[in-house]
Amino acid sequence: MANSKTAVEAVKVNNGVKQFESDEIAVEQVLNIYINKELYASLMCTPVEKVELAIGFLFAEGVIASMDDVLSIVELHESIVCAALNYEPEDSSRKRKALTSGCAKGNVDLDILEGQGISPVKDSCDYQAGFILNMMREFNHKSELFKETGGVHSCAICNSGGIVLFSEDIGRHNALDKVIGKALRNNMELKDKLLMTTGRISSDIAVKAARAGIPIIVSHSAPTDMAIEIAKRANITIAGFARGSRMNIYCGSHRIKL
Amino acid sequence: MANSKTAVEAVKVNNGVKQFESDEIAVEQVLNIYINKELYASLMCTPVEKVELAIGFLFAEGVIASMDDVLSIVELHESIVCAALNYEPEDSSRKRKALTSGCAKGNVDLDILEGQGISPVKDSCDYQAGFILNMMREFNHKSELFKETGGVHSCAICNSGGIVLFSEDIGRHNALDKVIGKALRNNMELKDKLLMTTGRISSDIAVKAARAGIPIIVSHSAPTDMAIEIAKRANITIAGFARGSRMNIYCGSHRIKL
Repeated sequence: MANSKTAVEAVKVNNGVKQFESDEIAVEQVLNIYINKELYASLMCTPVEKVELAIGFLFAEGVIASMDDVLSIVELHESIVCAALNYEPEDSSRKRKALTSGCAKGNVDLDILEGQGISPVKDSCDYQAGFILNMMREFNHKSELFKETGGVHSCAICNSGGIVLFSEDIGRHNALDKVIGKALRNNMELKDKLLMTTGRISSDIAVKAARAGIPIIVSHSAPTDMAIEIAKRANITIAGFARGSRMNIYCGSHRIKL
Repeated sequence: MANSKTAVEAVKVNNGVKQFESDEIAVEQVLNIYINKELYASLMCTPVEKVELAIGFLFAEGVIASMDDVLSIVELHESIVCAALNYEPEDSSRKRKALTSGCAKGNVDLDILEGQGISPVKDSCDYQAGFILNMMREFNHKSELFKETGGVHSCAICNSGGIVLFSEDIGRHNALDKVIGKALRNNMELKDKLLMTTGRISSDIAVKAARAGIPIIVSHSAPTDMAIEIAKRANITIAGFARGSRMNIYCGSHRIKL
């Protein structure tokens, strides 16, 4: 948490009165990801769990298929993570463009799954609706950084015992890459897990989940129509607006029992 | 609005009861932007105000400096906007990567303004705090699409008479590009206007505002530390958490009077 927030002086206006006060805000920093000594991508992020972010990002980009492709990955400097891979990625000669906090590669169309060799997720788990809503409550209370700064998104991976992985970042894509990066690093199967996110479910979030083989995405927020179409093709369950005792299941409702 | 939302069948869970109901969700579509007949960028967006989005995006990218650089710009197809420029942009041979809804180019560091020849904004206006909070209330009620889908961000440009431009999009960067694109198209000066956004103010949002010469950014949500640093260098006022009778001014407080 130490690097993820900072105190600034703010002028707080309240009912027409100005007051100088310290305020906690989210830190945003660049992370340069090198592959085999060459700069591959620059992301704007919350600068914690940088190695996990790099792993999840390279996985989402299709650069690595698992940790077996990674000889080593280390944080060389505050803003640099270097990965040594056991092969030269096809397009390593072409640098990735700099990416901002809300960013991910994504020439997203409905054929993206087939085009990238991503198979539909199998039906190997289901969850009770009540359990999911309880987990969402726990998830919503978990982000200290959000409580302090109001400026970050969170993602969590959950099994039938509760939340097993949790990450936060100024970017909703980064928060997801971080939990997927942690799962890869810990050799954790995702085919029977729930993904929870504070962010909207756009097409690229659905594609990231499909690539990682995550069967269920639950969000506090809304999905887009393209995310639902991709989720249907990937046999992924999407539930949105999971708040209090309610949620809307947009596809794959067979995995959510009452 | 016709293209920006769609009805889907959802399973609504409420207190342990499942019910099939129609639900309105936000549409997400690709927009391919061509420059001089060559594909320049693909964005995921809410497919309305596509020409304005393309203008604002090309401006933010530094490809055009004003509408004087644009011979013509038209929507050729549901997913294609074509711009003819009066010159060949330097890097037109290099296609932009596909971008998702949360995306923008941005190798953001603190020297980006100087590097891109963006001058600090002049002190040519100020606003009363009470007026700004009234405008934020009006702004928050304005997004029909958000009320219906919960899945979009909004931006507005406001002068001392009220809101003059308003746009919404699944991506917070796109919503900003749309209002800036509209201002450029209408030859509207921005140096005395307020920008209002529902989204977080990250570094790239501050850079977009600086490039357009907008002196004040007010958000319902939080800024990052890097956005504040960039705003200070660009002499831009940032106010966050503008809700009810409160807001926090993080820099440039001389432009907000009590």
